[in-house]
Amino acid sequence: MSQFIVIEGLEGAGKSTVQGHVVAWLEARGLSVMRTREPGGTPLAEKMRGLVKEVHEEPLTMEAELLLMYAARVQLVKNRIQPALAADTWVVGDRHDWSSLAYQGGGRGIDIALIRQIKQAVLGDFAPDLILYLDIDPAQGLERARIRGELDRIEQEQLGFFERTRAGYLQLAQNDPHCEVIDASQSEAEVKAAVLACLERRLCTLG
Amino acid sequence: MSQFIVIEGLEGAGKSTVQGHVVAWLEARGLSVMRTREPGGTPLAEKMRGLVKEVHEEPLTMEAELLLMYAARVQLVKNRIQPALAADTWVVGDRHDWSSLAYQGGGRGIDIALIRQIKQAVLGDFAPDLILYLDIDPAQGLERARIRGELDRIEQEQLGFFERTRAGYLQLAQNDPHCEVIDASQSEAEVKAAVLACLERRLCTLG
Ligand SMILES: Nc1ncnc2c1ncn2[C@@H]1O[C@H](COP(=O)(O)OP(=O)(O)OP(=O)(O)O)[C@@H](O)[C@H]1O
Ligand SMILES: Nc1ncnc2c1ncn2[C@@H]1O[C@H](COP(=O)(O)OP(=O)(O)OP(=O)(O)O)[C@@H](O)[C@H]1O
Ligand SMILES: [Mg+2]
Ligand SMILES: [Mg+2]
Repeated sequence: MSQFIVIEGLEGAGKSTVQGHVVAWLEARGLSVMRTREPGGTPLAEKMRGLVKEVHEEPLTMEAELLLMYAARVQLVKNRIQPALAADTWVVGDRHDWSSLAYQGGGRGIDIALIRQIKQAVLGDFAPDLILYLDIDPAQGLERARIRGELDRIEQEQLGFFERTRAGYLQLAQNDPHCEVIDASQSEAEVKAAVLACLERRLCTLG
Repeated sequence: MSQFIVIEGLEGAGKSTVQGHVVAWLEARGLSVMRTREPGGTPLAEKMRGLVKEVHEEPLTMEAELLLMYAARVQLVKNRIQPALAADTWVVGDRHDWSSLAYQGGGRGIDIALIRQIKQAVLGDFAPDLILYLDIDPAQGLERARIRGELDRIEQEQLGFFERTRAGYLQLAQNDPHCEVIDASQSEAEVKAAVLACLERRLCTLG
């Protein structure tokens, strides 16, 4: 049965890079694979992503930001991820629900219980089968992201915001048996090796 | 102290018309008044309104619709309504929270308790001081709206959807002392007279 694998972590942690390795590993095993990124991944969800990422004259309240993230997520899950899983396609996601818990909860300070309520209300028990959390020092991650290009509205936050977000991620990781923590401060080759080792260990019974 | 007055009701019930009467009545008493409409009323909220109102190729899930409504509402409340009330300006709203409870709850069948949870999560106890609910038979309201112009995505729903929405409204009205029910099947002059009588009765101590 196909699974939903999610890569989580701060900006520049290496999520998109790792997503490529996971997709390649699954495809090498003859599996059908779809990749997604959040927020976004459907025409409507990409419009919502735009509202969240762009810098606006009007301040985007943290509550509206949270609701937009979930609106985009619901569109992606119901219109693309669940149909793919039902058709025996594996889904490899660049970010998912933990991003809201870590960024809006840890980073912005919105009550985690309240975020979980909203999640439960609109997505029920839907959750990834495996989460690869790429742990990195925010300064190191932002440095990598900065080399890549201009920073968006969220990437322009203060370092303290990302420190709180990282703490949020680590707390989630500690309490979830579906999560593997990868030390993303390592070289690309080392991160790749750690990820592939995880996949072998977790999914080794695959055809 | 300034108050937040909301006009609620089905399409074509006469909300926008009544809003004009309420604004005129308040202004005639020398009060500062702001009008709003939902969803919308700020640049970002109007973009969210667009996503909800337009017909898209991709189906907008009812959960995302609900979250977008609240995202727009939070922007409007925090960036415009609350600052206005704090500056002693009266606010007269064309739709507000009851529209979500009646349309997404009654009409679409989303659990009302769950909608209230989301509302409480992002807006706390914020609520109108007075709600004028314009009760009308859906067929009669839609006939009025149709004369006015083309129907948007929500207005294109079946009659049964609006019957359930009306039932949702009536249930809310029964249980809220802040609400006045106006028979909106009456002539414009009769509706106006009923609204003004309500305002006199409710707000008669005003300078
Ligand atoms: N382990 C690594 N060591 C050094 N550089 C890396 C490593 N992994 C990725 N990079 C580089 O860092 C940059 C950011 O990587 P990547 O885009 O994969 O991160 P990301 O987590 O997807 O970032 P974002 O959150 O901004 O999308 C890229 O230029 C990538 O080539
Ligand atoms: N009591 C009434 N009797 C007959 N026609 C009315 C009455 N009230 C309003 N109208 C007319 O019906 C149409 C719809 O009224 P209005 O725009 O005020 O409704 P609305 O509730 O704001 O509609 P919508 O939900 O579509 O914005 C308008 O053309 C208006 O002039
Ligand atoms: Mg990336
Ligand atoms: Mg109107």
